[in-house]
Amino acid sequence: MKTLTHVDERGEDPRMVDVSGKTVTDRTAHAQARVLFPRDIAQTLSDAGFMTKKGAVLTVAQIAGVMGVKATSQLIPLCHPLSLNGCRVEITMEGDEAVIDCRVSCQGKTGVEMEALTGASVAALTIYDMCKALSHDMVIREVKLMGKAGGKRDFLRIEA
Amino acid sequence: MKTLTHVDERGEDPRMVDVSGKTVTDRTAHAQARVLFPRDIAQTLSDAGFMTKKGAVLTVAQIAGVMGVKATSQLIPLCHPLSLNGCRVEITMEGDEAVIDCRVSCQGKTGVEMEALTGASVAALTIYDMCKALSHDMVIREVKLMGKAGGKRDFLRIEA
Amino acid sequence: MKTLTHVDERGEDPRMVDVSGKTVTDRTAHAQARVLFPRDIAQTLSDAGFMTKKGAVLTVAQIAGVMGVKATSQLIPLCHPLSLNGCRVEITMEGDEAVIDCRVSCQGKTGVEMEALTGASVAALTIYDMCKALSHDMVIREVKLMGKAGGKRDFLRIEA
Amino acid sequence: MKTLTHVDERGEDPRMVDVSGKTVTDRTAHAQARVLFPRDIAQTLSDAGFMTKKGAVLTVAQIAGVMGVKATSQLIPLCHPLSLNGCRVEITMEGDEAVIDCRVSCQGKTGVEMEALTGASVAALTIYDMCKALSHDMVIREVKLMGKAGGKRDFLRIEA
Amino acid sequence: MKTLTHVDERGEDPRMVDVSGKTVTDRTAHAQARVLFPRDIAQTLSDAGFMTKKGAVLTVAQIAGVMGVKATSQLIPLCHPLSLNGCRVEITMEGDEAVIDCRVSCQGKTGVEMEALTGASVAALTIYDMCKALSHDMVIREVKLMGKAGGKRDFLRIEA
Amino acid sequence: MKTLTHVDERGEDPRMVDVSGKTVTDRTAHAQARVLFPRDIAQTLSDAGFMTKKGAVLTVAQIAGVMGVKATSQLIPLCHPLSLNGCRVEITMEGDEAVIDCRVSCQGKTGVEMEALTGASVAALTIYDMCKALSHDMVIREVKLMGKAGGKRDFLRIEA
Repeated sequence: MKTLTHVDERGEDPRMVDVSGKTVTDRTAHAQARVLFPRDIAQTLSDAGFMTKKGAVLTVAQIAGVMGVKATSQLIPLCHPLSLNGCRVEITMEGDEAVIDCRVSCQGKTGVEMEALTGASVAALTIYDMCKALSHDMVIREVKLMGKAGGKRDFLRIEA
Repeated sequence: MKTLTHVDERGEDPRMVDVSGKTVTDRTAHAQARVLFPRDIAQTLSDAGFMTKKGAVLTVAQIAGVMGVKATSQLIPLCHPLSLNGCRVEITMEGDEAVIDCRVSCQGKTGVEMEALTGASVAALTIYDMCKALSHDMVIREVKLMGKAGGKRDFLRIEA
Repeated sequence: MKTLTHVDERGEDPRMVDVSGKTVTDRTAHAQARVLFPRDIAQTLSDAGFMTKKGAVLTVAQIAGVMGVKATSQLIPLCHPLSLNGCRVEITMEGDEAVIDCRVSCQGKTGVEMEALTGASVAALTIYDMCKALSHDMVIREVKLMGKAGGKRDFLRIEA
Repeated sequence: MKTLTHVDERGEDPRMVDVSGKTVTDRTAHAQARVLFPRDIAQTLSDAGFMTKKGAVLTVAQIAGVMGVKATSQLIPLCHPLSLNGCRVEITMEGDEAVIDCRVSCQGKTGVEMEALTGASVAALTIYDMCKALSHDMVIREVKLMGKAGGKRDFLRIEA
Repeated sequence: MKTLTHVDERGEDPRMVDVSGKTVTDRTAHAQARVLFPRDIAQTLSDAGFMTKKGAVLTVAQIAGVMGVKATSQLIPLCHPLSLNGCRVEITMEGDEAVIDCRVSCQGKTGVEMEALTGASVAALTIYDMCKALSHDMVIREVKLMGKAGGKRDFLRIEA
Repeated sequence: MKTLTHVDERGEDPRMVDVSGKTVTDRTAHAQARVLFPRDIAQTLSDAGFMTKKGAVLTVAQIAGVMGVKATSQLIPLCHPLSLNGCRVEITMEGDEAVIDCRVSCQGKTGVEMEALTGASVAALTIYDMCKALSHDMVIREVKLMGKAGGKRDFLRIEA
């Protein structure tokens, strides 16, 4: 059974937090997204070398992911615009899931975790778009931060 | 145990599929994303009326979701640009999860499921951004299509 | 003496209003912005043929205005994206003021008044940018709708 | 009576002025825009807690303002793209006017006055959009720079 | 010997031409761009299957071309924004040249030749970017319209 | 006679190359594009002072070029986003050709040659757009890098 929390918002103005006082450091972040295919669709895609009538599913998704990383501050309202040092999106199949790993680095005053998460999300959405003629039963099953370094507090996800 | 599928892509050129021959119809789509908070963070946010130092979490996320819907064809490489009739992003709390429902309508030759999925994803990413000073243990747990209508084949997700 | 109204926002979700039921008509809108220069700056600009070290002030502003019109739905969160039939930005000097008239037309289900207002605003901001090396005492004195036609209710501003 | 100045533009090429030789400093700017409502509309909005069928007027405008700040160099043709340290948009009611204060900070070679002015303008346009179903007699009455610091010449507007 | 034409521009305001009176038709356009590689670079790329340390040259270029098509009205100041029916970018090698063919279709009041030319140009620029670690002696040798249909006057390029 | 090279792409993931280890230097680049007009069109344009019904051809193209420079990292998938110090687009007529020179400078870890090439291309495309009502026989005849400085290897094109 579900409970519906009443939401009462007020008080603070939305703001891009001031980072004037923070120091410039080398920062990295790694996010992961997973797209779960129905069993038969995963098989069909695998048999076809992940090629659909729209083209090469995984390559298009990788490129979309990199471009998504660059679009982050335009999509997330209170996210700082920043320069990037590098970005890589890798996609592998684990059983019936496409696993997207997006790694981003920058030299700046704020972290790049939103960039990594956004890149992984856009790559996942693109996989969906490339394959949706086959099925709408695909699910983007998880988007999460795996790790970040270079800021005040590092983070590393521990999974069982 | 996991198996790694070898991916060999070749053959088809990437393309925006030609919809010249399709008829213009009224189309709707509904996508849902879920952001799972650690128990104590959910409590903290609830106590604070979902207000953080960056502002009103859910309202900022709703607006980001609507703007994300409008940015879809710029993010998803082979997605058609199209006009929209309307768009609504609702967010409710179910236990420790923020549930984002994004509904989009248009009159056109292609469906708006990618728009709905993108809007839900951007709203989820924005919730993450608004709350990440509290924890990085949040997870965007699911992004999926709930239903679509008006195209060649309607879709309605059946959940247990 | 000023009174500060307390603002208590809650209730409605932000939404792009659904226009599915509206009919497609030819629509036009006309907005005007005015940039007031300090007297001596107006004279300096006039003497220089409105040419600064950044280039031709008014031409750059006109082009920025047209491009601003096209960016409207990306800037105004709940504004519908739409196709345009035409757009023209004219700028004339009236005394010490640059008067920007932005006219937009489309065939669609929603009006183009936000497009006209945004185009006029962006042109005014561009004039400011082109001239700000001379002075920061310029003021964008007014941005307002002069008229619109083709929707449920026409509008024509009556000025004394 | 009005005089129409003849404009004859020629000579200089439009250019993004070279700032290679300038030093990197902490810079801030503050701009203000004012939206004047007809008396009865101001009352209606106030009674409704500034909530219209499109949602929470002022919150949507604040967020649009922050995103407008980030879009500045894409809107103003000869404006430098730059990183930002922070940004805040506040809106208060003074009588029948919504007063928008947009403050921006960066560390760079150029000032952020265009960013502040653009953010204030986009917030004002968004207020217009959120309320235009009530009236088109609203006027964006003023957009002006209130102050800037950190560059070659500071600026502080003195008002009576 | 070269002659330098004096350019004296004045008179007409820049405008997005009004197409209100034009009829909606099915329109297509085909543009071509050619990237000429130095002989040894063409050989190196061919030997490597057009794979560089940045990834698959031609696939990345194709996708960039399709996204460039969709960005046309944001890049070309007086170009109409429009919906698209389809788009395809093909790249083949002819001797030492990469030949990019970009085909676009829409149903609208204006042609899509600028979209096709922009898509071909962005694909060519992307090939350059993917290969520039090898040489800067590449040249985008030609960007031209090959044909268009559906407007007032069709066009078909005749080449010797 | 032409030979068609078979393209077999695989292996490397597309990536934005990591420049974390590179040093920040002052960098400049100069690119050139040429638009060849049919003889009679060149004459018509020259007689009209390069003014068409869409406005001042060369000024609009210059501004589009500068804005194109700023859009580079959004258009070229694996290009780094970066700050710019300055940008200038000059256009001169040489016989029947419009010659576009785009010069860009930045202080950063990567060069600005893609920015210069993109700016020159967008200016060339804009000239085409401004003049296409006269003829479609125009050709963007060449887009090439003329020089770059400030990186690991400088480049200067030597032409006969």
